[in-house]
Amino acid sequence: MDKIQLEQYVDELRQSLKTRVGENPVLLLISGGVDSTVTGALLLKILNSDQVHLMYMDTGLMRKDETISVKSALEKLGAKHLHIVHCEDEFLAALKGKSEPEVKRKTIGDLFITVQERETARLGLPENYFLAQGTIRADLVESGEGSPSVIKSHHNVASPLVEAKRKAGTVIEPLARLYKDDVRTLGLFLGLDESITARHPFPGPGLAVRVLGEVTKEKCDILREADAIFIEELKRRRGPSGRSLYDEIWQAFAVLLPVRSTGIKDNARAYGQVLALRAITGTDGMTAAPYLFETRDLLEIASRITGSVKEIGRVTYDISGKPPATIEWE
Amino acid sequence: MDKIQLEQYVDELRQSLKTRVGENPVLLLISGGVDSTVTGALLLKILNSDQVHLMYMDTGLMRKDETISVKSALEKLGAKHLHIVHCEDEFLAALKGKSEPEVKRKTIGDLFITVQERETARLGLPENYFLAQGTIRADLVESGEGSPSVIKSHHNVASPLVEAKRKAGTVIEPLARLYKDDVRTLGLFLGLDESITARHPFPGPGLAVRVLGEVTKEKCDILREADAIFIEELKRRRGPSGRSLYDEIWQAFAVLLPVRSTGIKDNARAYGQVLALRAITGTDGMTAAPYLFETRDLLEIASRITGSVKEIGRVTYDISGKPPATIEWE
Repeated sequence: MDKIQLEQYVDELRQSLKTRVGENPVLLLISGGVDSTVTGALLLKILNSDQVHLMYMDTGLMRKDETISVKSALEKLGAKHLHIVHCEDEFLAALKGKSEPEVKRKTIGDLFITVQERETARLGLPENYFLAQGTIRADLVESGEGSPSVIKSHHNVASPLVEAKRKAGTVIEPLARLYKDDVRTLGLFLGLDESITARHPFPGPGLAVRVLGEVTKEKCDILREADAIFIEELKRRRGPSGRSLYDEIWQAFAVLLPVRSTGIKDNARAYGQVLALRAITGTDGMTAAPYLFETRDLLEIASRITGSVKEIGRVTYDISGKPPATIEWE
Repeated sequence: MDKIQLEQYVDELRQSLKTRVGENPVLLLISGGVDSTVTGALLLKILNSDQVHLMYMDTGLMRKDETISVKSALEKLGAKHLHIVHCEDEFLAALKGKSEPEVKRKTIGDLFITVQERETARLGLPENYFLAQGTIRADLVESGEGSPSVIKSHHNVASPLVEAKRKAGTVIEPLARLYKDDVRTLGLFLGLDESITARHPFPGPGLAVRVLGEVTKEKCDILREADAIFIEELKRRRGPSGRSLYDEIWQAFAVLLPVRSTGIKDNARAYGQVLALRAITGTDGMTAAPYLFETRDLLEIASRITGSVKEIGRVTYDISGKPPATIEWE
């Protein structure tokens, strides 16, 4: 979309949203990802900032400095009611001892709903409040519409709160017609910084699907550090197009494997944890290919990670396409 | 070493070995690797083939078609006493339920010695037989001589049988002064095929250190297939020097991780096993670097593996140097 189309899109939304929502409060859950943050920016642009309630749950499964950067971006856009819920301990306690991917996903999804409903109730909004969602086109496709099977459950599409609100006709999904690239352009147009809008997609269950097996705070901390180094390196290295590798890549992240492997430290045998790096070129939702790095870049990044994060002794690069592999590992 | 040096080396050995060994029998354990096979070829060249006893243990932890190719190579060189010990079931039973790397290594080392002593006794050799070993220069360095710490135990250096024989002065190690490259040149000079002499190094405990965690026949079979495809692809692809990737690479192999990750099969969510590929450029024993593939080669190889070995859903490439990682994963 070009600038004129964007202005038109926002104008149309302003009219239709204002008509639908009126003076009622609107609640939006901010996940930390691009979609919900742009939705937040859009609501703040279109509606009265007094009626916009933004809730962000710090589950302890977020990327490094994610909470800080989302908070400051939304405050910059005039957010008045920004509710940061600190629920790290609650999520880690619920995940304790759970290592099966489906069990982990369900645990997070269920707790997400519990906390969301509890914290929403705590806000004391009138019953006729609207619920905004950052759903985009690709989410709907992956959740089964027009596709032969549900590949992954997006908990922001199916929760009881959402279902109840949907039945009541009070769910608004202003980005549902947009593709990711349009969402990004819209975000910039609305005044979000590129460090937010250009951010790679991040899954609903957060780092829990990237700490394979049982999730602990210690493992999340290790993964957060390693992931941040990976991303920092991608931002400072240039690709063939002259853009940064980060901008050339659709989605990049690190995965912590429940595997220890041998290494050498101070000339003695030592065990280190194993990290996998994943980087994906553009995807149409159903297929994706690994990014074609210069292998030297990968080796240097791996070396910086093992040099900086002492727990990690070995780094691999995921060279699998989708299909047969999914983008995320769990 | 050039041809003249090789001839000289073999001539010197012929004189010294014949003087030392006389008419006594010589027993050599063939591991399937280059070193012991070249040692076998050397013994068959220098000594009377009637006094040379070659023992090969098929532990079930060998690479694909390894037993067949070693057997035919040694028979071609005139081996008369080639004892193939089929002990796959024995090794797999001993490894059952064991997932700690050190425990696995010790189990294999101990059983290796047990089977070796039992089968040696079965041969009924006179007590004054000599024991030949394929030890090369790098093995001694890695086992502690001149190095600050023992990185990895080589069971062919330290077994009681070897120790007893060493005390009795009846161990012969004709390659102990040679570096790997010289061993290869010597092998060719002795009439071994390049498919044997150019073979990448293979660890004593075999595939057991490449099936991470508990070892089962099923996992070994999966790894064997995937590894064979990897090697085949390296042999048919050319590197920058014009040689095959296999010849440009010092050591390449696949590792089966005790990790399942999500994938897509027939449009539905599926779990697949994760494979890591490792490829190392030349090593001085203490350091090694991953081979700098064209990433496209890696992607095509990964795709062929997941297309051919249905249990594998995801493939990664190990981008860690030594140090901090070792070449093998366990």
